[in-house]
Amino acid sequence: MASNTMYSNPPCAACKFLRRKCLTGCIFAPYFPPEEPTKFANVHKIFGSSNVSKLLNEILPHQREDAVNSLAYEADARLKDPVYGCVGAISVLQRQVVHLQRELDAVNADLMRYSKGKNYGRGGSSLDTNTGICVAYNPYQWINNPASDNAGIGGDGGR
Amino acid sequence: MASNTMYSNPPCAACKFLRRKCLTGCIFAPYFPPEEPTKFANVHKIFGSSNVSKLLNEILPHQREDAVNSLAYEADARLKDPVYGCVGAISVLQRQVVHLQRELDAVNADLMRYSKGKNYGRGGSSLDTNTGICVAYNPYQWINNPASDNAGIGGDGGR
Repeated sequence: MASNTMYSNPPCAACKFLRRKCLTGCIFAPYFPPEEPTKFANVHKIFGSSNVSKLLNEILPHQREDAVNSLAYEADARLKDPVYGCVGAISVLQRQVVHLQRELDAVNADLMRYSKGKNYGRGGSSLDTNTGICVAYNPYQWINNPASDNAGIGGDGGR
Repeated sequence: MASNTMYSNPPCAACKFLRRKCLTGCIFAPYFPPEEPTKFANVHKIFGSSNVSKLLNEILPHQREDAVNSLAYEADARLKDPVYGCVGAISVLQRQVVHLQRELDAVNADLMRYSKGKNYGRGGSSLDTNTGICVAYNPYQWINNPASDNAGIGGDGGR
């Protein structure tokens, strides 16, 4: 007697980890192949499989691969740095942007002096001199202090 | 008869959300005050309160405020952009760094020409011409393609 239910063999990394049957149409299977067990284990440890499954079901199928990869990236970063996770990378990059923009402004100023008022100077992003944030690119305005020594994220932790 | 158990009144945002008594020493209370209910709700929705509690217990007390703020930042970014979350911000910043480094290299080259071999030119980060990544700063080497149109994160999604 043939069964109407089809199983993946071998099961995907998620179903193997969760010790359940990997049914055809499993939401995890295309993104968590059996040969990458750590990818699911990390995502599960940080976000929980139920939250990941919910998120994948709320977005379009063609977006799911990118979503899983970004979750895996965040999970890996949080396991490496439990305090800042990938927000630490954002802070480093923001400081780098501020540093490069200042360098660029300085070199442009030097070039201006060399060219003696010939209106020479390259464009680029504009640095907000009040905040030190490169306003044209800053994706989250509330990362408001990239020049400080900590992660530069907002909020006072309620203390 | 006095009780040995002390409660916070009002309860912290986490205990109120989870509908439980907020005991003295509650791991969430210092970071999730009652007047910021959304902060906990977002973190709980993305990471789950059990994972957050586990993480806070695994790090030192003086690191917890930063950890909660970075989790809140990630959660907020994921709610705004379910596909890329804060990895989208990393990708934008990486592209910005590559763009600024190229600008800086070009302006430095112009300056060199002006100064006619006087060994003039500013320093700055070095751009790896093979990968396009500013190698001195890149915090996660496996964000390997910042110049592409997608989030630039690694992994093939197992397809």
